[in-house]
Amino acid sequence: MNIEMIRAAAQRLEGHARRTPLLSSPFLDEIAGRRIFVKPECLQHTGSFKFRGAYNAVAALDRDTRTNGVIAFSSGNHAQGIALAARLHAVPAVIIMPADSPALKLANTADLGAEVITYDRATEDRDEIGERLAKDRGLTLIKPFDEPQVIAGQGTTGLEIAEQAAEMGIREANVIVCCGGGGLTSGIALALEADAPGLLVRTAEPEGFDDVARSLRSGKIERNDATSGNICDAIITPQPGNLTFPIMHRLCGPGLVVSETEALLAMAHAFQRLKLVAEPGGAVALAAALFRTDQIDGDDVIVTISGGNVDSAMFTRALESI
Amino acid sequence: MNIEMIRAAAQRLEGHARRTPLLSSPFLDEIAGRRIFVKPECLQHTGSFKFRGAYNAVAALDRDTRTNGVIAFSSGNHAQGIALAARLHAVPAVIIMPADSPALKLANTADLGAEVITYDRATEDRDEIGERLAKDRGLTLIKPFDEPQVIAGQGTTGLEIAEQAAEMGIREANVIVCCGGGGLTSGIALALEADAPGLLVRTAEPEGFDDVARSLRSGKIERNDATSGNICDAIITPQPGNLTFPIMHRLCGPGLVVSETEALLAMAHAFQRLKLVAEPGGAVALAAALFRTDQIDGDDVIVTISGGNVDSAMFTRALESI
Repeated sequence: MNIEMIRAAAQRLEGHARRTPLLSSPFLDEIAGRRIFVKPECLQHTGSFKFRGAYNAVAALDRDTRTNGVIAFSSGNHAQGIALAARLHAVPAVIIMPADSPALKLANTADLGAEVITYDRATEDRDEIGERLAKDRGLTLIKPFDEPQVIAGQGTTGLEIAEQAAEMGIREANVIVCCGGGGLTSGIALALEADAPGLLVRTAEPEGFDDVARSLRSGKIERNDATSGNICDAIITPQPGNLTFPIMHRLCGPGLVVSETEALLAMAHAFQRLKLVAEPGGAVALAAALFRTDQIDGDDVIVTISGGNVDSAMFTRALESI
Repeated sequence: MNIEMIRAAAQRLEGHARRTPLLSSPFLDEIAGRRIFVKPECLQHTGSFKFRGAYNAVAALDRDTRTNGVIAFSSGNHAQGIALAARLHAVPAVIIMPADSPALKLANTADLGAEVITYDRATEDRDEIGERLAKDRGLTLIKPFDEPQVIAGQGTTGLEIAEQAAEMGIREANVIVCCGGGGLTSGIALALEADAPGLLVRTAEPEGFDDVARSLRSGKIERNDATSGNICDAIITPQPGNLTFPIMHRLCGPGLVVSETEALLAMAHAFQRLKLVAEPGGAVALAAALFRTDQIDGDDVIVTISGGNVDSAMFTRALESI
């Protein structure tokens, strides 16, 4: 992994991924006691940053390999990112999803042109299904975060943050990133190391699923006890990746951790002050900036809203929390 | 009013107003049967396009006049736009609002630094209050739409649409604009006449408050029977402006009209597919593009989402409508 891979990804994404703006609100600044700038990747295609890494990974395959198609395991944002990326390259995509996934997620992924194959979580082995399909059809597996071209694609978010911060005259700031497996975080960290070394990346995670914060503290990969049971499901993974963790360990500051209640409150603030729809996992960085102010340094903070794929019931719950 | 005033406004707004992106979703395209591009002015400062006109009008005052401050009558988006524009120029702003305005709107306007003066709609004459204050303090009244520098500021939205459409290779399209008094519509129409003559501006209004559609049809200014009693309150005015109507009459195609139910549905689609918060009046153009497809020509349509200042209860109602 290096910065040149991220710059190459930016070229591949030119005209395909959205250059999301950097937004702010005086009302949020007042709560935080410093200026907050928001990078809304919920406005990215398919509603999350995942499209960047997916598109880059598909685009980076050699033509013959790509023509056979790609395969991914995901019930969430990575699935939609891969589905759209494959469609834009006119190649097949197979997405393996649990049969009990929310109907809307199954439908969205299929509507984006992917072949959705469901499995029974209780009785079937998804890896076995995936391997068989990949072999039979010559599909290339694209992992959700521990994959160099995926990290490079997510890192283009960091190139944009570096440019936008420079335009705003911001030379020093904490950049808080919603963190699951670390693909977005490590990509942004590499981009900022090169283009904006005064910007320090911090991770944000939900309480009880703070594997990255604990790993950063101990210096080695730590696992979560559970991998479900939190509304921030989009960013919950068993542990940081083997590729992403060394990058985060070298470049990131201490991790920040917020409660579910704070994530919901941050969603309500994003609604009210930014007119943005954030999903719970996509709101943890904003929550940290708003409610963990004593753990943040400096006059300015930049946060990602990593995704906005949330259903009406959960969004209504967030609006009722304020 | 002319295009040079709009270009001058763009220079004044440079670095102050946001250049909002042009967004899209394959799911919306599918509903409409053509490509829909969305200009989300809900992401503008203060949550609506009104900031553009307000900032330009304040900036265009000569220094001595400006120093005395500005005054506006508004309970809504214009109030917030003027309040922030005045604050950014470090001049006083007085906003005259009905005493029974929603508490959040009163608070937001005051929090943006304006002096809010309330009046009793039943017993007091707001014009008399405003005139007295303006005279006593030397304040300049900035009207919400029938004011050349306000129209010029709103027209910068049109300059951006012209550029963004050209980048997407769009030479011909209907551009549907949420229309109240016609400030945004006439400004965009003038900008597109100069920079993108293949783009035809159309207005969108709520049923029962279609003064502009009727005025465009009859060729003279027509009034609404009522000026309240619709959820699209942000874009309800008694009649088109004396400055804005001749421009709209010369340049715009037939007006489009949608129901409250359709506006709510469009809000739900903007939530689900674009991750944007639209207010009911801000969603009527998207509603027209989605649900009045037989009245629209061509392969592409561009719509404004003119604002996102909606409370939780109304937004929840929209989410429940889908």
